[in-house]
Amino acid sequence: MSGTGRLVGVGTGPGDPELLTLKAVRALGEADVVAHFAKRGNNGNARRTVAGHLRPDVIELPLLYPVTTEIEKDHDDYKAAILHFYEESAAAVESHLAAGRTVAVLSEGDPLFYGSYMHLHVRLAQRFPTEVIPGVTAMSGCWSQAGLPIVQGDDVLTVLPGTMDEKELARRLADTQAAVIMKIGRNLPKIRRAVEAAGRLEGAVYVERGTMENTASMPLAGRQDGPAPYFSIVLVPGWDARP
Amino acid sequence: MSGTGRLVGVGTGPGDPELLTLKAVRALGEADVVAHFAKRGNNGNARRTVAGHLRPDVIELPLLYPVTTEIEKDHDDYKAAILHFYEESAAAVESHLAAGRTVAVLSEGDPLFYGSYMHLHVRLAQRFPTEVIPGVTAMSGCWSQAGLPIVQGDDVLTVLPGTMDEKELARRLADTQAAVIMKIGRNLPKIRRAVEAAGRLEGAVYVERGTMENTASMPLAGRQDGPAPYFSIVLVPGWDARP
Repeated sequence: MSGTGRLVGVGTGPGDPELLTLKAVRALGEADVVAHFAKRGNNGNARRTVAGHLRPDVIELPLLYPVTTEIEKDHDDYKAAILHFYEESAAAVESHLAAGRTVAVLSEGDPLFYGSYMHLHVRLAQRFPTEVIPGVTAMSGCWSQAGLPIVQGDDVLTVLPGTMDEKELARRLADTQAAVIMKIGRNLPKIRRAVEAAGRLEGAVYVERGTMENTASMPLAGRQDGPAPYFSIVLVPGWDARP
Repeated sequence: MSGTGRLVGVGTGPGDPELLTLKAVRALGEADVVAHFAKRGNNGNARRTVAGHLRPDVIELPLLYPVTTEIEKDHDDYKAAILHFYEESAAAVESHLAAGRTVAVLSEGDPLFYGSYMHLHVRLAQRFPTEVIPGVTAMSGCWSQAGLPIVQGDDVLTVLPGTMDEKELARRLADTQAAVIMKIGRNLPKIRRAVEAAGRLEGAVYVERGTMENTASMPLAGRQDGPAPYFSIVLVPGWDARP
């Protein structure tokens, strides 16, 4: 492995820069290159979170998602564009690794938990020395911000995408002690109906931008129907048999 | 609220002291009292994790679980002993808060995710200024240690206790893209049968003591049947449609 660089997936946590781990801060100080995924024209939340910890001489490698909003996500053209983007991104990181540089790839929350870093990991981790530094997930940030005990003892927790079909969402919500629903966006009215159909509206909490400066939380029952920001989540707490 | 102390639930992460957050380190430096749950004769993992960050003049408040191993967990005597213990622990913390002291309560992993801290939170958070500092969960530590991408895109993740009935475990494993099974202990043979019955043995990984010095991980299929240590976990990865 000598002569080759090191790949480090760095979890940057839910948004509050103080929720970086000591290990993440050290990795940022050791990195020759810092890469991050972002949309064009938007530096991304992970990059903002680590701003105070980058070396002045660091090489920055922004990996900018192709503009594909006009194509349906299930369309073959979208899939081809995204696949091409991940291949190109991996090649860009690989060229630095091959030159002996340590590359830290920022990842909001935890790298292997729904993180874009995973697309680089599966392409590069078998060929280069690789370390993954776990981070505090967005969901932990949200239930901590709301002071909401989520699971205890033998509770089952289910993490669900808000994009799921309403009946399927309701079925799964009725089959778990606790749930976290992500990808809220324009799905909020549907999600609320599913939570209510499962008999879980009482106690369900909506949180947006957990741990960030402009965070807010409220009962899901009272949240207006309008679109939710990207960093929003619905929490259905378990632990109904509190001693 | 003036004159009263502050309650802080501090997530200490999965075991590696470098996986403490900057916020947790700051909270430990500001605390007048540091409390931690532990078994008698065992300082506990959270206390070990923060050893390098305690003030020399800090007041330590160990909260020692009553010795109840000879009583069945479902027995009323056990429940009464545990309830009494949580009430006494809350009273001990409350006396410091009432005296104006800031009390940090250590919690392995993330405080509101299966953490003992929750028993103090529900008794005290409505009466004293309270902050919960989220931490890296044990499960994040385990899949990062194993370099195992766990969920992506619209994957459903289910967190299950290994104490669950075998058929119920198999049913739930067949109904999710990814799963984390906790509380392994003596349940390993049963868990492996359930994972196999659900058709998910290929790819399933066993991890013990993730991020700690003596960590190990291996395919679940190859793990011997003997009892697993307390800090062990089974991971069933999702993301089968990798682009």
